[in-house]
Amino acid sequence: MKILVVGASGTLGSAVVAELSKRHDVISASRSGDVKVDVKDAASIKAMFAEVGKVDAIVFTAGKAHFGPLSAMTPELMDVGIKDKLMGQVNLVLTGTEYLNDGGSFTLVSGILATEPIKAGTNASLVNGAIDSFVVAAAIELPRGIRINAVSATVFEEAMEHYGPFFRGFKPVPVADVALAFSRSVEGATTGKIFKVGYV
Amino acid sequence: MKILVVGASGTLGSAVVAELSKRHDVISASRSGDVKVDVKDAASIKAMFAEVGKVDAIVFTAGKAHFGPLSAMTPELMDVGIKDKLMGQVNLVLTGTEYLNDGGSFTLVSGILATEPIKAGTNASLVNGAIDSFVVAAAIELPRGIRINAVSATVFEEAMEHYGPFFRGFKPVPVADVALAFSRSVEGATTGKIFKVGYV
Repeated sequence: MKILVVGASGTLGSAVVAELSKRHDVISASRSGDVKVDVKDAASIKAMFAEVGKVDAIVFTAGKAHFGPLSAMTPELMDVGIKDKLMGQVNLVLTGTEYLNDGGSFTLVSGILATEPIKAGTNASLVNGAIDSFVVAAAIELPRGIRINAVSATVFEEAMEHYGPFFRGFKPVPVADVALAFSRSVEGATTGKIFKVGYV
Repeated sequence: MKILVVGASGTLGSAVVAELSKRHDVISASRSGDVKVDVKDAASIKAMFAEVGKVDAIVFTAGKAHFGPLSAMTPELMDVGIKDKLMGQVNLVLTGTEYLNDGGSFTLVSGILATEPIKAGTNASLVNGAIDSFVVAAAIELPRGIRINAVSATVFEEAMEHYGPFFRGFKPVPVADVALAFSRSVEGATTGKIFKVGYV
């Protein structure tokens, strides 16, 4: 398969590229990669697809949200996650559908905060919940046998230095295990599923 | 209790006002009501709270989303639900917290499409999923014993003329039953709960 991985330069993206490139032709896109894309910018998304052309799978492994207390939350801080992790991925689906071959797939990235909240996590929770529900809904409308799933993991072992204080008591998972869920989505036949990794 | 109902003029809002006003002092706000508010406008929300003052419960019963096929979806159409039903309610929570008395409550409105998709429902699904997850996350951070829940119902009997074609096979519920869930949220003691009405 020819697979486009968007956000390939991050912790998760690198692990997903490592897993999928064992068996497939992987194109890596990121803000600083060979193929450049800023998912907050619809024109940048269009330019990326024009450069890459048709693929068999589109995988998203990045997305920013704001972490901070509800008492200091503002509409502008809520927009951080809405414009980046949420609408970045939604716009990649809306634009990317025509670049997927028949029977192709989207795999989005969500996260455990959709249902397991932490302090300072309202923006991430909102965004992850939106992604999960979008995936379930888009799955029944995509044309030509195109599938869509999301991977929703707990905190990664490799990210504990930064995110550990937010996730006390959560058992982290190796990011390589999360990459396996992306493989299941891309190389399996399921659609409309949220692959949960490391939920206790 | 002194209860502010935002969106009081709609089908759901009228039923919630009818239920709660049996026992409480209800203030009705809507785009055309005695107390005027446009939830898409942060300044309008602030003006409403300045006019109403402190209350014991804030209830939301309105919110628009776009219904249309995924194949014709655009970022702008996705924004319809994000700016209205989603961020309208989030901003009402962010601004309204300081206007709630100790132990007060928010009750938001979500919907069955968060997990039970229909064709043409991607915007509503995304928005409802975001609201459910926001409620779960905000519940653990609100101060002074303030609670927050959402009511997530299936299609209303009273709305079948308009929404029936979208919801074939769904068993509609009387909107008065949905209003009872708002009463349970406001007059109960639960927080962080999605009250599901008419899920089969």
